Amino acid sequence: MLVALVSIRVKPEHVQAFIAATLDNARNSVQEAGVARFDFIQQADDPNHFMLIEVFHSPEAQQAHRETPHYLAWRAAVADLLAEPRVGVRYLPIFPDQALWKYPDA
Amino acid sequence: MLVALVSIRVKPEHVQAFIAATLDNARNSVQEAGVARFDFIQQADDPNHFMLIEVFHSPEAQQAHRETPHYLAWRAAVADLLAEPRVGVRYLPIFPDQALWKYPDA
Repeated sequence: MLVALVSIRVKPEHVQAFIAATLDNARNSVQEAGVARFDFIQQADDPNHFMLIEVFHSPEAQQAHRETPHYLAWRAAVADLLAEPRVGVRYLPIFPDQALWKYPDA
Repeated sequence: MLVALVSIRVKPEHVQAFIAATLDNARNSVQEAGVARFDFIQQADDPNHFMLIEVFHSPEAQQAHRETPHYLAWRAAVADLLAEPRVGVRYLPIFPDQALWKYPDA
């Protein structure tokens, strides 16, 4: 299991378009078998800055995510909306137990 | 609801002590009524760097967390273990729906 934190800075005039494209990607991503969570958050005091908290069951699942049509469509859709290249960093979970790294049943 | 991402850089010789103290804090924090999640992760390629993903039901819940005995004990225990001051940034959730910002039943 691994956690990718992705920091994304968006051009101010494109924030709404970025949110729409990323919601579409998130909704599709959580349907992937290898995706445990796909949180999407906006900085409280800087609405042009976003983070994705992507939780994958394995490195292979992260690679599979990068080959999905929804990820490729998102990457193309947001390319011109970003103020700077996005930055992703990989982490390993310590707490909670791995079985809890998923969403509850709705 | 708000999400606090806290970046923490630890002196290499104190990593194990930091993990132990933070696990204790995390296990107590998730018992708080106002805490939805308290994820603790370690950077894959830099084991001296950690992130906390703290999800609170409200700003008041974050403040209440900061007054708990376990938080105060953690803050004191780790003060000399850190390589630099920790940095916390607040975010607002966009995805998923707020009802899903909690752990599943174990």
